[in-house]
Amino acid sequence: MSGGDEAAARFAAAEGRSFMARAFAAAGLPETDAEMVAERMLFADLRGIDSHGVVRLPVYIKRLRAGGINRRPTIRIARESPATALVDGDNGMGHLVMGFAARLAIAKAAASGIGWVGARRSNHAGAGATYAMMPLAHDMIGLYLAVANINHMAPWGGIEPLLGTNPIAVAVPTLDEPPVVLDIATTATSFGRIRVAAQNGERLPEGLVIDRTGAPVTDPLKAEEGLLLPMGGYKGYGLSLVLSLLGGALNGTPVGRDSAGIPAADPANTGQAIMALNLASFGPVEEFKRHVDRIVRDLRTSKPLPGGGEVRFPGQQGHRTATERGRSGIPIRPALRAELGKLAAELGIAPLKLQS
Amino acid sequence: MSGGDEAAARFAAAEGRSFMARAFAAAGLPETDAEMVAERMLFADLRGIDSHGVVRLPVYIKRLRAGGINRRPTIRIARESPATALVDGDNGMGHLVMGFAARLAIAKAAASGIGWVGARRSNHAGAGATYAMMPLAHDMIGLYLAVANINHMAPWGGIEPLLGTNPIAVAVPTLDEPPVVLDIATTATSFGRIRVAAQNGERLPEGLVIDRTGAPVTDPLKAEEGLLLPMGGYKGYGLSLVLSLLGGALNGTPVGRDSAGIPAADPANTGQAIMALNLASFGPVEEFKRHVDRIVRDLRTSKPLPGGGEVRFPGQQGHRTATERGRSGIPIRPALRAELGKLAAELGIAPLKLQS
Repeated sequence: MSGGDEAAARFAAAEGRSFMARAFAAAGLPETDAEMVAERMLFADLRGIDSHGVVRLPVYIKRLRAGGINRRPTIRIARESPATALVDGDNGMGHLVMGFAARLAIAKAAASGIGWVGARRSNHAGAGATYAMMPLAHDMIGLYLAVANINHMAPWGGIEPLLGTNPIAVAVPTLDEPPVVLDIATTATSFGRIRVAAQNGERLPEGLVIDRTGAPVTDPLKAEEGLLLPMGGYKGYGLSLVLSLLGGALNGTPVGRDSAGIPAADPANTGQAIMALNLASFGPVEEFKRHVDRIVRDLRTSKPLPGGGEVRFPGQQGHRTATERGRSGIPIRPALRAELGKLAAELGIAPLKLQS
Repeated sequence: MSGGDEAAARFAAAEGRSFMARAFAAAGLPETDAEMVAERMLFADLRGIDSHGVVRLPVYIKRLRAGGINRRPTIRIARESPATALVDGDNGMGHLVMGFAARLAIAKAAASGIGWVGARRSNHAGAGATYAMMPLAHDMIGLYLAVANINHMAPWGGIEPLLGTNPIAVAVPTLDEPPVVLDIATTATSFGRIRVAAQNGERLPEGLVIDRTGAPVTDPLKAEEGLLLPMGGYKGYGLSLVLSLLGGALNGTPVGRDSAGIPAADPANTGQAIMALNLASFGPVEEFKRHVDRIVRDLRTSKPLPGGGEVRFPGQQGHRTATERGRSGIPIRPALRAELGKLAAELGIAPLKLQS
């Protein structure tokens, strides 16, 4: 997703954060909330998860202005036990709801060894890695999962779209190596990637999208009408289902047929969950981190396929991209630049300033 | 795995349990331990997970007699916090260690909403579903994960076998429908399945096994020298890795290069973990179960692919097989029958009695 950065115009991280915060404040979010959402979106842009950063700003602003998302939510704990909680997001921005949930999970894990916090009446929260990585600074493993608001996947062997891309993200602390960060959708591909294929005039490989007769769809322009296939066949179908039960049904949010066809101006009632697992409850923290360092080093220095490139581990590339973009700025395509310019004018805020 | 049952000889569930208990007792396990392991292995045979039931008896007995597994372990809590624990299995049968761990996780989830228990110095514990399903009776969701003792998978893009089939199992309570039970390896296939293909003289489809040049291996007889591919490409690689960190590194057991080449008579030091999540901590239990019933009913009554069979959900077939086999007995192949006959003679116990 971060390919072809070289020639593009770029904006500095600080300016990206400030621009998004300006936009959210102009759309009615309290200033601290506006800054917090901007910070979490920028995190995705920095790590190269381009589909979940500033590119989503126009959609979020549109939903906020249409009243589809609550600008001044009272995010609260609806139910609580020593090591779990259910958070009611009051239809606020998902970034705020899941930030609240992550802090709570970390506090619970500090006291009880583990914390699991589910959220209902939430909204799209951006990249899962954002929240899965929050426990890292507390010497904890983080796990985030979410139920997608749109169903693009059929059960294995079926043709009715009853499940979503339901993502899972896991982050594991390291010592000297970048943290291990897995952040995947349970579908074989995503519409973000399909859009990139369409823009580049490429065909899709088989195994990603099928039509209602089960035939492969390889034209990215026809993928929108098709069904996304699960990652790894029936296994990914099963994973997507259990994530929807853990992130949706358990929190009392709609799943499957119930979740289809919610109008854009209505609350999405997104369900998500975050877990924090305290390393200190299992042994000496530094020893664990050193062990993980050794494991990932063994992986990345292992023999590649003949003619293949470097062997990587999950989180390695995101860390590199964040370092590079933090230094050199975040690339932006002309079409998005124009769209953000229009948005700035509409909101009456200073436009996103590019690096010269 | 339960195909072609019709013509085979069968044994009754009670006799299977009793036979395995006889064998373990003869190999030196205390009687209650022998019965418990037998019960957990039978569970796999009943649900059609044929690769993890009585078929494993000769291997377990061999390791017990060689001193590779401790017959009289003192399974104990090595570390504990309110909602987590680390169990030291004292190199006992994995079935006993993970039964202990599951009971502890359930008790912790009853008190704290969630319980996470890891195990070190454990051994192969059979089918993951066995343990993931234990919390069901307590109105809890169960999650089990394990680090495989042999590495057959390379990191994505690599050719060195540094990861295993690391399985994950999740079980979710229902009301009238069979429970949702996902039990998958993170490799695209397993050697159990490859063996079946070899027995049936079938070729393997591409995408399951590669050789050290990256070329697909389709001859099941050559799969043993090859590398298993992860389910869903790099996503399954990432899943396998994080499971090895959660089930292995966190519990202080070997992962990756460290775990290779442990001689058969030495302790395997297997790492596993189980989590129990208390439904009552999130809302009314019956409401949740009804919701899951509705979701899985929507899935299984949804439109199949043209010309396709019934749409299923994970756990449905296992439940059916268990019902059928509980009634009609468990099928057994002639080769296994002969092997078990030889084992019975060696141990001086009454052989497995077949149904007439």
